[in-house]
Amino acid sequence: MSIPLEELLDQVRLLWHVAVQAGERLHQGEAVTLGGRAVLEFLEANGPTTVPEVARRRHVTRQHIQALVNVLLDLGLVALDVNPAHRRSALVRLTAEGERAIARMRKRERRLLEGLAVRASQEELRRAAAVLAEVRGALGGRP
Amino acid sequence: MSIPLEELLDQVRLLWHVAVQAGERLHQGEAVTLGGRAVLEFLEANGPTTVPEVARRRHVTRQHIQALVNVLLDLGLVALDVNPAHRRSALVRLTAEGERAIARMRKRERRLLEGLAVRASQEELRRAAAVLAEVRGALGGRP
Repeated sequence: MSIPLEELLDQVRLLWHVAVQAGERLHQGEAVTLGGRAVLEFLEANGPTTVPEVARRRHVTRQHIQALVNVLLDLGLVALDVNPAHRRSALVRLTAEGERAIARMRKRERRLLEGLAVRASQEELRRAAAVLAEVRGALGGRP
Repeated sequence: MSIPLEELLDQVRLLWHVAVQAGERLHQGEAVTLGGRAVLEFLEANGPTTVPEVARRRHVTRQHIQALVNVLLDLGLVALDVNPAHRRSALVRLTAEGERAIARMRKRERRLLEGLAVRASQEELRRAAAVLAEVRGALGGRP
């Protein structure tokens, strides 16, 4: 027998896999992977940020973010700026092309999500998101 | 501005990363990765299954499951049986050691989850899980 929290985490895992597959289908023509997309989105929301800081905030390893940033640099979607606070840890920022890429992907995603026939109210979606944030806080160690 | 469904999917992603990290910390001493653990759990719940069927049901690629199964075979946690239905697609089953490994990991996880101070009722957790299942159905194409 599963307890409700186990069932919820299993649903998180299953939905995450389905969302990744849907994203891959949706962005087939893009050079950017879903991991790269997450970095672009982070930089769009937070402005220029160092690799270790992105990793910390996204709960993934620094090596993982560094690999994604290297690919984005090659694609010309991000660039490095000198960091006034830490000379050895450059700030990663979106280029104009990077801004266009993330805007294009987000628009496509929004269109997909708005077209979905989800049998749940906006309020139920919001409440579920709040429960996930709560579980994350408990599981990850609250700040 | 995000719509509620975007916020929910972002929370799914964030919680998934935190859960993976928590699982890695929790099972540090185990030879099994979290991907391997998911395969063991699947076989425990569903009995002997072919690689393509596990992949289909878990919404991941066949190559991904095959790689995990190869490692589990090396570890002696699963074994292959001839498939009476398809001679060329063997059934993967848990060995006695595999059964012990998944039982041990689940027990450790249950203890962690039961000890968490989650400020959400069992009913709220269940409702959130149902919303995620609904979104998954809409996003992945309902069966």
